Amino acid sequence: MKKYILSLLLLFTFVSNAQIQRVEPPFWWSGMNLSEVQIMFYGKNIAQNDVSVSNGIVIKNIKKTENPNYVFVTIDTKNVATQNFVFTFKNGKKSFTQNYSLKARRDNSKNRKSYDSSDVIYLIMPDRFANGNPNNDSTNNTNEKGNRTNPGGRHGGDIEGIIKNLDYIKELGATALWPTPLCEDNDETYSYHGYGQSDVYKMDSRYGTNEDYVRLSAELHKRGMKNIMDYVTNHWGWKHWMYNDLPTYDWIHQFPGYSQSNYKMTTQFDKNASKIDAKNCMDGWFVPSMPDLNQSNPLVLNYLTQNAIWWIEYADLDGFRVDTYSYNDKEGISKWTKAITDEYPHFNIVGEVWMHNQAQMSYWQKDSKIGAIESYNSYLPSVMDFTLHDAIGNVFNENNQSWDKGMIQVYDNFVNDFLYPNPNNLLVFVENHDTGRFNEIYKNDFKKYQMAMTLIATIRGIPQLYYGSEIGMNGDKGKGDADIRKDFPGGWDGDSNNAFTKQGRTPEQQKFFDFSSKLFTWRKSAAVIHSGKTTHYIPENNVYVYFRYNEQQTVMVVINNNPEKQTIKTKRFNENIQNFKSGKDVITDKSYDLKDEIEIDGKSALILELQ
Amino acid sequence: MKKYILSLLLLFTFVSNAQIQRVEPPFWWSGMNLSEVQIMFYGKNIAQNDVSVSNGIVIKNIKKTENPNYVFVTIDTKNVATQNFVFTFKNGKKSFTQNYSLKARRDNSKNRKSYDSSDVIYLIMPDRFANGNPNNDSTNNTNEKGNRTNPGGRHGGDIEGIIKNLDYIKELGATALWPTPLCEDNDETYSYHGYGQSDVYKMDSRYGTNEDYVRLSAELHKRGMKNIMDYVTNHWGWKHWMYNDLPTYDWIHQFPGYSQSNYKMTTQFDKNASKIDAKNCMDGWFVPSMPDLNQSNPLVLNYLTQNAIWWIEYADLDGFRVDTYSYNDKEGISKWTKAITDEYPHFNIVGEVWMHNQAQMSYWQKDSKIGAIESYNSYLPSVMDFTLHDAIGNVFNENNQSWDKGMIQVYDNFVNDFLYPNPNNLLVFVENHDTGRFNEIYKNDFKKYQMAMTLIATIRGIPQLYYGSEIGMNGDKGKGDADIRKDFPGGWDGDSNNAFTKQGRTPEQQKFFDFSSKLFTWRKSAAVIHSGKTTHYIPENNVYVYFRYNEQQTVMVVINNNPEKQTIKTKRFNENIQNFKSGKDVITDKSYDLKDEIEIDGKSALILELQ
Repeated sequence: MKKYILSLLLLFTFVSNAQIQRVEPPFWWSGMNLSEVQIMFYGKNIAQNDVSVSNGIVIKNIKKTENPNYVFVTIDTKNVATQNFVFTFKNGKKSFTQNYSLKARRDNSKNRKSYDSSDVIYLIMPDRFANGNPNNDSTNNTNEKGNRTNPGGRHGGDIEGIIKNLDYIKELGATALWPTPLCEDNDETYSYHGYGQSDVYKMDSRYGTNEDYVRLSAELHKRGMKNIMDYVTNHWGWKHWMYNDLPTYDWIHQFPGYSQSNYKMTTQFDKNASKIDAKNCMDGWFVPSMPDLNQSNPLVLNYLTQNAIWWIEYADLDGFRVDTYSYNDKEGISKWTKAITDEYPHFNIVGEVWMHNQAQMSYWQKDSKIGAIESYNSYLPSVMDFTLHDAIGNVFNENNQSWDKGMIQVYDNFVNDFLYPNPNNLLVFVENHDTGRFNEIYKNDFKKYQMAMTLIATIRGIPQLYYGSEIGMNGDKGKGDADIRKDFPGGWDGDSNNAFTKQGRTPEQQKFFDFSSKLFTWRKSAAVIHSGKTTHYIPENNVYVYFRYNEQQTVMVVINNNPEKQTIKTKRFNENIQNFKSGKDVITDKSYDLKDEIEIDGKSALILELQ
Repeated sequence: MKKYILSLLLLFTFVSNAQIQRVEPPFWWSGMNLSEVQIMFYGKNIAQNDVSVSNGIVIKNIKKTENPNYVFVTIDTKNVATQNFVFTFKNGKKSFTQNYSLKARRDNSKNRKSYDSSDVIYLIMPDRFANGNPNNDSTNNTNEKGNRTNPGGRHGGDIEGIIKNLDYIKELGATALWPTPLCEDNDETYSYHGYGQSDVYKMDSRYGTNEDYVRLSAELHKRGMKNIMDYVTNHWGWKHWMYNDLPTYDWIHQFPGYSQSNYKMTTQFDKNASKIDAKNCMDGWFVPSMPDLNQSNPLVLNYLTQNAIWWIEYADLDGFRVDTYSYNDKEGISKWTKAITDEYPHFNIVGEVWMHNQAQMSYWQKDSKIGAIESYNSYLPSVMDFTLHDAIGNVFNENNQSWDKGMIQVYDNFVNDFLYPNPNNLLVFVENHDTGRFNEIYKNDFKKYQMAMTLIATIRGIPQLYYGSEIGMNGDKGKGDADIRKDFPGGWDGDSNNAFTKQGRTPEQQKFFDFSSKLFTWRKSAAVIHSGKTTHYIPENNVYVYFRYNEQQTVMVVINNNPEKQTIKTKRFNENIQNFKSGKDVITDKSYDLKDEIEIDGKSALILELQ
């Protein structure tokens, strides 16, 4: 009889357990700053149960919503050791259980270092970089199947492909990797970009497994490199498992239904903005396929915060890039960002704040004096230097200097550095996965490529490269996103051109690669660039001269945007040249006497280490 | 014998007194905040004398320089009553005297009101406005003689001409007058603009006397209008009496000799700027004919401060406009500005800060949070909205709206208002004496004129008009300054067209004038515009809608920059329309029902008082 009852109980538990379809986060760690974990349990009518927990763990709060399929249970893990324990769900005489664990953290996890101005970030779109495992190009649990002939389709690139080519990235001189999102995006078409996620606790099976992602971090770390996750707080994809059974009506912004963002991010600080415009910007959806998350709902905010920290701790991450940062609920995203940096004080996070005015961009950087005008602090350590990108998109075709054309445009970008609380923590880039490719705009002009790369490699901030430019890849944004996101040659078995290896590259590709690799490999150990001071001089005759210097070293950069050779009198630069006699160019090793003048070829750049 | 000695003494005093060629300021007032007055005495070898003063007045300091022809004597006038007293200069047995007075101030002089957003400023170039006294077109003590046939010459306009036409300016709806500088400019050519002054204590005799200038203030005040002086701190003209006998070598910036400004005002806050660039901007000369004053020399700073306060007190002024404000020594000009507003707490001063970025312009406004980033405070109450001017110069020809073209450009100007400590104390203008004329750029298109004037009349800030636009005057900056500074028709006896009177205007002039007068006269009593709040809406289809409102009134402004008629759904504006049912247009008196939609003609504007 006793045995019979036991069997019955076991059977009952089994059946009931099936009610739990999701537990998120699936586990947590002992010793976290975020010690009050709000665990979401999802299952049919789960809210009808009473919840208890074993091992003396304290439940701080049980939150139920209008949807009976969810219950949010907050436990206090402060000073609770690593262990497994059990939640029991009981409704009258029926009950079932759910195991849960507090795991052990990696050594010194809290104080993990992150990326900074000593790094060079290599940005890739994983679907378009390298197909390391052709067996996962299509998977049973995802809608869109592999089809490399469709420019906007799934091409099969994956985590395995990235890992196989880390040595290539290292050889280029990059020290950190930013792949666009790898979590599952189950859209039926156009899913390869990954910004419409369907499960934020799981890698897309066409890229690999969660374990593969952890392995990517390990392989990067083995090479002294860093793993930056592209995190999306603003929206999910419409195939997200929660979308058809929302925990609360206001989990996403509904008007009711869909309303598109007006994209006017200025409404977030404009004191004259109408309320309706500000709301439409923040709460409107980016595109119809991306339900806009409501970060002002504490349940949503907790969910996103815990998910982000979960990934850092689980996958041993070194940094975040955050998508559409300035479209989030302003107060919510500030709390999210602060929670992460409270957990990991050195963790760097760069937000996509795509604006065209430094005061407006500065508003979003941590401890901004401009944000402080409205008592706002985003806590976001880094933003992207989009105004520099604006200038780079025109300047190298401007052969003559005027009041606002030519290198003065680039100079003018940096005069506003005082507006940023931390200009050295800005991402500097000539392009990314959303812009026209540099080599398209400048018709693969190698000289212009050299000038632009010299600029981002030697100015303050963190250079970010976009895969393929280093071998001269081009792509026209005007033709659509697919054109700027083409497959890296050599990433697929059978590719006729393999730019990952010296043997496989065309002479043209080799020329681009050699220069890039030399420049960025030099930068790796150039502390004067990582943290030195800057003095720049008003460009004259379309020649921009600036110095990076610290107590150990002075580097003089000369960028001649004139098609003609120029002669630069050195006297004007006395306050930086001081007693130095000559400068050796980092790329050509040629020495330049600083006594009277320096001659520089048209459309070229010098990086002189002063001696 | 006694009588003989007395005569001899008198004679001696007379002869010696002739040594004093200048005493500046020529007198002062009792009860000033600036009570320690530093009086400059100028005369051949005057520094060889000991200086004493009668009436128990205390001498705080006697400052001599490397030039023996100057002595700077600081007296303390604190708690000293109105009186005349005598300075005695003594060298061995020789001595001479100089009378001096502390005068009585006007009632409530300290708390004089100034111009503010309830005003409309009318800017004129006195030489080109009206010739009230043909007898002073050429004068004995000035080099350039009257010659109206020379576009860049002296045309004969004067203070008398201004006074004669104050009723015209009042009829237009302006409430304050800003004439470009009236102090003596004794350049041999091109002296009419007055920015190269040769004596800053004296009106140019071709404009009139100091007494005439006082009378101008009185005539303005009689009409409830205000007198704004155009003050130049940055430089004098090379015919300034002091230039050939400088008190100190560093009274002006010498390199040695001439060095031109690089005009890069950003070097004043750019923390990466080279020292040489910053120095060249600030200390370089604006043009070769304008010696650049060194406001970091305390003697120069005192001289300028006392001169400025002297004019306010002497001529009963209501405000300043300061030329090339951001080219001055940054710390010096801040002290100058603070001294004036310490003396007259409500005194408004607008500085010419001609930049193209709101954060940069905000830097120069009093109590700017952006200036505070570098611990700088200019104390300058007002700056000019040059970014709005930039937008106005293009927008009305942009018939289609894009991300940054069309009315969005104007809207985008105001989104940055939060950067300014006081956006309502910005000058708003479509043109001034240094820019192309609006009616030239827009080919006298009356509809565009109406849109632009509606904008500056109803947005926050202080509208500034430039003489002649109100009757459709045009002028092409590309042809030179003379073309944008033509004579006002009717200002000279015998002018065939007299636009000062209704009878004398052409129908086209009358059309411009009627509209302008109606608009600005309405604005005079529209408190909701002077101090109301603003809500604006992201332009759609090139139509910009904004509201000005206070507890008493709401005004809705609609500017349709589309060539085609537009229909505006009112629902979007509910947060401002609230329970109002209709709106009456200020210009046409036509009533508009607000229930569903408003129809507005192409290229036109409505100013609806909601009811």
